[in-house]
Amino acid sequence: MNMHDISEATEITPSGRIDRADHGWRAKCLQRLVRMQLPVPRSFAISADTVRMIAQGRRVHPDALRDVFAGSGLVSVRPSAVMPDWGGPGTILNVGINDSLHERLVGLIGQDNADAIYLAFVQSYATHIARLDPDMFTQDGPNALAEALRCYRDEMDAPFPQDPAEQLAEVLRSMARAWDGPTARLLRQAKGAPPDAPLGLVVQEMALALGPGLCGSGTIQFIDPVTGAPRVTGRFRGQHHGATVGSGAETLFLTSDERGPSLQDTAPEIFADLVRFGIAARERLREEMQIEFVVTEGRISVIDATRVTRSSRASVRIAVSLARDGVIPHDEALMRVEPRALADLLHHQVDPRVPRKLIARGIDASPGAATGRIVFSAAAAQSAHARGEACVLVRRETVPEDIRGMHASVAVLTERGGTTSHAAVIARGLGLPCIVGATGLAIDARARTLRAGDQLLHEGDEITIDGSSGEVLAGAATLLPPALDDAFTQLLDWAAEAGGLDVRANADTPEDAITARRFHAKGIGLCRTEHMFFDAERLPAMREMIFADSPEDRRLSLERILPMQRKDFTRLFEIMAGLPVTIRLFDPPLHEFLPHDRDGLRELAESLDLPLSHVTRRVEALTEFNPMLGMRGVRLGITVPEIYDMQARAIFEATVEASRKGDPVVPEIMIPLVSAMREVELVKTRIDAVAAAVRNEMRADFTFRLGVMVETPRAALRAGDIAAHSAFLSFGTNDLTQMTYGLSRDDAGRFMGTYVGQGVYAEDPFHVLDQDGVGELLLTGVRRARQQKPSITLSVCGEHGGNPESIAFCHAADIDYVSCSPFRVPVARLAAAQSAIRSRMACDSE
Amino acid sequence: MNMHDISEATEITPSGRIDRADHGWRAKCLQRLVRMQLPVPRSFAISADTVRMIAQGRRVHPDALRDVFAGSGLVSVRPSAVMPDWGGPGTILNVGINDSLHERLVGLIGQDNADAIYLAFVQSYATHIARLDPDMFTQDGPNALAEALRCYRDEMDAPFPQDPAEQLAEVLRSMARAWDGPTARLLRQAKGAPPDAPLGLVVQEMALALGPGLCGSGTIQFIDPVTGAPRVTGRFRGQHHGATVGSGAETLFLTSDERGPSLQDTAPEIFADLVRFGIAARERLREEMQIEFVVTEGRISVIDATRVTRSSRASVRIAVSLARDGVIPHDEALMRVEPRALADLLHHQVDPRVPRKLIARGIDASPGAATGRIVFSAAAAQSAHARGEACVLVRRETVPEDIRGMHASVAVLTERGGTTSHAAVIARGLGLPCIVGATGLAIDARARTLRAGDQLLHEGDEITIDGSSGEVLAGAATLLPPALDDAFTQLLDWAAEAGGLDVRANADTPEDAITARRFHAKGIGLCRTEHMFFDAERLPAMREMIFADSPEDRRLSLERILPMQRKDFTRLFEIMAGLPVTIRLFDPPLHEFLPHDRDGLRELAESLDLPLSHVTRRVEALTEFNPMLGMRGVRLGITVPEIYDMQARAIFEATVEASRKGDPVVPEIMIPLVSAMREVELVKTRIDAVAAAVRNEMRADFTFRLGVMVETPRAALRAGDIAAHSAFLSFGTNDLTQMTYGLSRDDAGRFMGTYVGQGVYAEDPFHVLDQDGVGELLLTGVRRARQQKPSITLSVCGEHGGNPESIAFCHAADIDYVSCSPFRVPVARLAAAQSAIRSRMACDSE
Repeated sequence: MNMHDISEATEITPSGRIDRADHGWRAKCLQRLVRMQLPVPRSFAISADTVRMIAQGRRVHPDALRDVFAGSGLVSVRPSAVMPDWGGPGTILNVGINDSLHERLVGLIGQDNADAIYLAFVQSYATHIARLDPDMFTQDGPNALAEALRCYRDEMDAPFPQDPAEQLAEVLRSMARAWDGPTARLLRQAKGAPPDAPLGLVVQEMALALGPGLCGSGTIQFIDPVTGAPRVTGRFRGQHHGATVGSGAETLFLTSDERGPSLQDTAPEIFADLVRFGIAARERLREEMQIEFVVTEGRISVIDATRVTRSSRASVRIAVSLARDGVIPHDEALMRVEPRALADLLHHQVDPRVPRKLIARGIDASPGAATGRIVFSAAAAQSAHARGEACVLVRRETVPEDIRGMHASVAVLTERGGTTSHAAVIARGLGLPCIVGATGLAIDARARTLRAGDQLLHEGDEITIDGSSGEVLAGAATLLPPALDDAFTQLLDWAAEAGGLDVRANADTPEDAITARRFHAKGIGLCRTEHMFFDAERLPAMREMIFADSPEDRRLSLERILPMQRKDFTRLFEIMAGLPVTIRLFDPPLHEFLPHDRDGLRELAESLDLPLSHVTRRVEALTEFNPMLGMRGVRLGITVPEIYDMQARAIFEATVEASRKGDPVVPEIMIPLVSAMREVELVKTRIDAVAAAVRNEMRADFTFRLGVMVETPRAALRAGDIAAHSAFLSFGTNDLTQMTYGLSRDDAGRFMGTYVGQGVYAEDPFHVLDQDGVGELLLTGVRRARQQKPSITLSVCGEHGGNPESIAFCHAADIDYVSCSPFRVPVARLAAAQSAIRSRMACDSE
Repeated sequence: MNMHDISEATEITPSGRIDRADHGWRAKCLQRLVRMQLPVPRSFAISADTVRMIAQGRRVHPDALRDVFAGSGLVSVRPSAVMPDWGGPGTILNVGINDSLHERLVGLIGQDNADAIYLAFVQSYATHIARLDPDMFTQDGPNALAEALRCYRDEMDAPFPQDPAEQLAEVLRSMARAWDGPTARLLRQAKGAPPDAPLGLVVQEMALALGPGLCGSGTIQFIDPVTGAPRVTGRFRGQHHGATVGSGAETLFLTSDERGPSLQDTAPEIFADLVRFGIAARERLREEMQIEFVVTEGRISVIDATRVTRSSRASVRIAVSLARDGVIPHDEALMRVEPRALADLLHHQVDPRVPRKLIARGIDASPGAATGRIVFSAAAAQSAHARGEACVLVRRETVPEDIRGMHASVAVLTERGGTTSHAAVIARGLGLPCIVGATGLAIDARARTLRAGDQLLHEGDEITIDGSSGEVLAGAATLLPPALDDAFTQLLDWAAEAGGLDVRANADTPEDAITARRFHAKGIGLCRTEHMFFDAERLPAMREMIFADSPEDRRLSLERILPMQRKDFTRLFEIMAGLPVTIRLFDPPLHEFLPHDRDGLRELAESLDLPLSHVTRRVEALTEFNPMLGMRGVRLGITVPEIYDMQARAIFEATVEASRKGDPVVPEIMIPLVSAMREVELVKTRIDAVAAAVRNEMRADFTFRLGVMVETPRAALRAGDIAAHSAFLSFGTNDLTQMTYGLSRDDAGRFMGTYVGQGVYAEDPFHVLDQDGVGELLLTGVRRARQQKPSITLSVCGEHGGNPESIAFCHAADIDYVSCSPFRVPVARLAAAQSAIRSRMACDSE
């Protein structure tokens, strides 16, 4: 014996020093079960330090563990890492069996069972500990045990070890070494564990699950892992010992609710005990646990308990239920749900329990699942919608003209594009499942076929889009409905109470606004107005305006759109009932409103009564090499100021109208694509003039807030100047990312996969905010703006507003709110709450 | 009298205290003439303080100026601002005339002359001092004087003032007030003067230029204002007094070289005196002066001397000549030439002395002038060139395919685009005069006509492009040849001696490289390699590469281009003879190498032996929404690495070849469009491998330097990381400006005019580096790169490299060198020298 022997194995008793960092989660969990006085067999914890020494060749002193064989004579050895999902070497059962114990067991549980236990251990020992060829230890039938023992002796030139202490020492050595191997390291690194993570081991006396009376083994859990609803599930297998020994023929359901024989009926007192254990474990372990148990002649042994694995929706329901029952505080319930998981709750999902018919994969651009018939054009989608048929719009990529087609579809699939391509952004806004960048597809829009590998699909064929996984499935998959239930609502309420930055929604339409309110958005942070001009009633006036030669003619064309715009805004103000609404002035280049094909041009020439050559020329003249960096946003606002004049008027008239009917409205007007302070000054002057005119004409007073969308790197750098003229700044991180990287989100899809795959970019910067580059510009902008005007409101609108990591960054950056697609509001809300809770925890621990 | 009287008027004597800041440039200049003992009439300087007080109502004490009337009795009053070009109120002559002086003058110079002087003053006084209606003072003929005096009395209810002191006081008051008026303020602000700039006045006794003997007035200067060559020019008008009085009939040339009567012949001693005065003035005033003089009965009076106005080329010749003669030091000669002026010397110029037939205006995109026949396509330009006809390529805008047509043209004119559009950049590189953004033109390429206002021009019509002024002229204008003379070369040599940052050239072809050397470039700072792939011999292999399905097939296609690329680089290395050559790896998106029209696609399909649909599909798939932000530069280098492999191999093989023949070559390889450090690491690994392979195969050793073009905001922010893997960083400020502003240079032309006009941007940021935004990123990049690696070479390549203000900024930013179009190298060299001299002066004065 030496000085370390005492620490080599610690018996798990209520008062023993068992520490998760030293002994692992399983040892700690078992100690809790022991403290709850559950019938846990005698167990010993071996610390990570000891395991490390064993791996380095030190032998465990047999005396330290001799006691564990005092019961049945059989023991199990299980891994006990710091976190359950870091894995570990496989459990080894039945350690301790030898010729003499075998003989004793024959008397207790019969020849067959005793043979089976001995055989199982010899096979396991030979292959996992002695590392002999597994193919040589597949013995079966009446002489299997004798053959296995002989085979072992032949191979090892020694008889099978008869000393239980020696068996155990070898098992421990083998498990310790396996944890140190390169494969195990890689596997646990993939789970987020450090490569040299510690491993503890648990050695436990085994209860026999074979023999006379009620004997067997089983698991029990108390919730449904898919829904999270309270429901007892599990199995009990009579005469089933360890993973492999025993007939297991008498498999029982647990409750009498099931259609078949159940433990509840067969052994009601055992069932009652198990339920009692479950309730106690949930309270003491503060978690829904699955309990593993053995019944020996009617006596229960609880041998292990693990956290129930669960779906996204179950995770919400469980967390809320634990908190409601007072088991955990609200903050802890919030921390236990992965924000991203909430997105799954808002939509239909493919049932994970049913096998899938995969035909292609792409980027999971908008979550949820839907089944519909393939259509290849926006027009076909609209016809299908009119016929009442669910359809999936399949395009190489979508363009603004496709929006109505997207509205008419149940899901969208594109061959090109990335997470922030047009299709992806619009689909998320509409809450439609969407897959983009499905590069394995070949779409032939003329032939109306879709080739995916060997399969050729035609227009009208049914497919399912799983936007949560990026999988395109053949036919109609089994779908689970959305889970906007009571637990979901409760969690959002708690999230709101937990504080953190506010969350608003990007909402362009009344439908969006209604969704935003349903998800408790604190207002609209970004209302894009351009889609409003694609309407069939408005497009002609818009085109007339583009072709007008004088400001006066432009004004006249826009006057026809004014009442419709006013109605757009009135409706939004009414729905939001006094919550702030930030309206971004017209942003896209004008050529988006013009046709580019021959027929469209001819039609346009006719309707404008202009020669085709003139119309063609004008359309060509407006075409741009790089529309993203062209004549749009405030540049249009300054060179064609009539558009902003009309929009400002519509906003103010709607403000007066809505304020007369309901809560007073203070609209927020946002100027896009600013790169210089003077742009803000010029637009401000004109908007102030429009406000004065409307106040005068309508004999009504109102206030408004004018702000700037910071989307160019220059605007971020000049945020100090710009803040001087702005009530708020909103960082449009989509465009800011595009310009900081020099990367068009519409074109990046083609190589983003390669780039992230090769680690050129750690993450897709359109998905997760790039803290090193874009983030620095954002922080610079925030600092300079606040220095110039401490009272300024600062926000982030764009796809990053819905990304949990990015929200944590915004929280730290002292941003007032984020704004994201309505369907991402719950995710953002929870992420914001978690950031706030983390900050408080960091403060408390300081 | 009061305490200020002494300072009210200071007689200009050799020892009097005349200060330019107090009394203005003219008073100071006159004092210098007085010190040179030139026959300057008695003169008094009135300080700016006094003028300010006069403007505020204070009257000048008459005694202070009474003496000035002691000579002829007539005086002039001239403005004397701090700088000559700040302007000032008009000169007032003949102050002091009244009935009694008139009577005396009748006896001296005759009735008509005396009447004329009196009349001139009454008219001038009435309109400029009494502010009466000028239309009432147009009297002419025998009774004009009496009528004018009566008219004055009628209007003013008082007789014409007879006290010379009172006249003078009124004149001073009026001039002082005029300087304070809003119009005068705006005018001088336009010249760069502060709005409250001081004004001195000069009161001078007038010499009579009328009367018996040789009398008259004239100007003389000693250099040709267009060429700067030594040549006496000017006029002498006999019997001509003040601007308006006298017959002036006897106008004489000055020298006997002229075809007509001359002062040199008529009065050789007077001419000799004037030449003597001129030589003395040049030496003492350290400048080429124009002297204004009056001859009274054979006696010369020097009444004023002003700096000769001069053309760009004259400014160079004058400065060099003054310095060579030891009148001024070299540094001062360098400071006296406006760097931009040098650009005019490199090209033909429209003779400023000949009237112009203007037909349209555009943006002056590349300086110089050329006459040629209009062609509307690159093909037509090449045919014209083959026929030996000079032609001007007229396009809506140019695209890479037009480059050969541009080569074949003498000038380029485009309807669209801005200073950094494709046409502008290429034309500057080729040294071709170019006008872009001539929005007043309507090009009909099919009808082959060009409409400019009312004029319709056809293919083959002759026009002249003045790329220095942005004017399109009808027909063949008179052109001055380039002036790459001895003075120009001397100035560049001095500029090189003056130090400052180095200047390299952007050179893509052997011709560019030869030009670069001719202009003393210190190497090639940017060799763009993409144009090399448009060659008829290479394009097919390039297209084959684009359509290849495997890396191996791509490699095979590129292998056909390898020997040509190697030859490209060998030739450049040979021309540059050991000077550094920075080669930028392939940058543009692949779709630039594919046809987009139907015929081109069909041809391509045939040559590749692929179905048309396949080719069309592939071309469409490669098309991008925003090519500027797409799959180009290092992104292509990483996803299609075979291109960079081939280029690196060509560079290294050329290095070995050229080093064997001449000076050892250390090529610099530059990676474009980097936004993340990892991109550099990945490319570096492959290039190192290619280098190792070439060293091994060719059994030769060589070194090379790998660097990064910093053109995305993110690369500037991450310059620290990136520097760790780079031998040099070159800031590509064109693209950096595009991305920082979110502004495509190809599309900005459409509104840049409005933007700069309305002061939204102070200057076109593609023309003058935006110090507040792009400049901050540049400084950040410089700081972080130097911090990481103090030895790193930092440069700016791009259009800003040739802009004087931007060079001053680069100098201050501690940039090692700038690189610009070969034809801008002299401008940049001079600007760099000036920055260095200014720094030294600032140090000295500390």
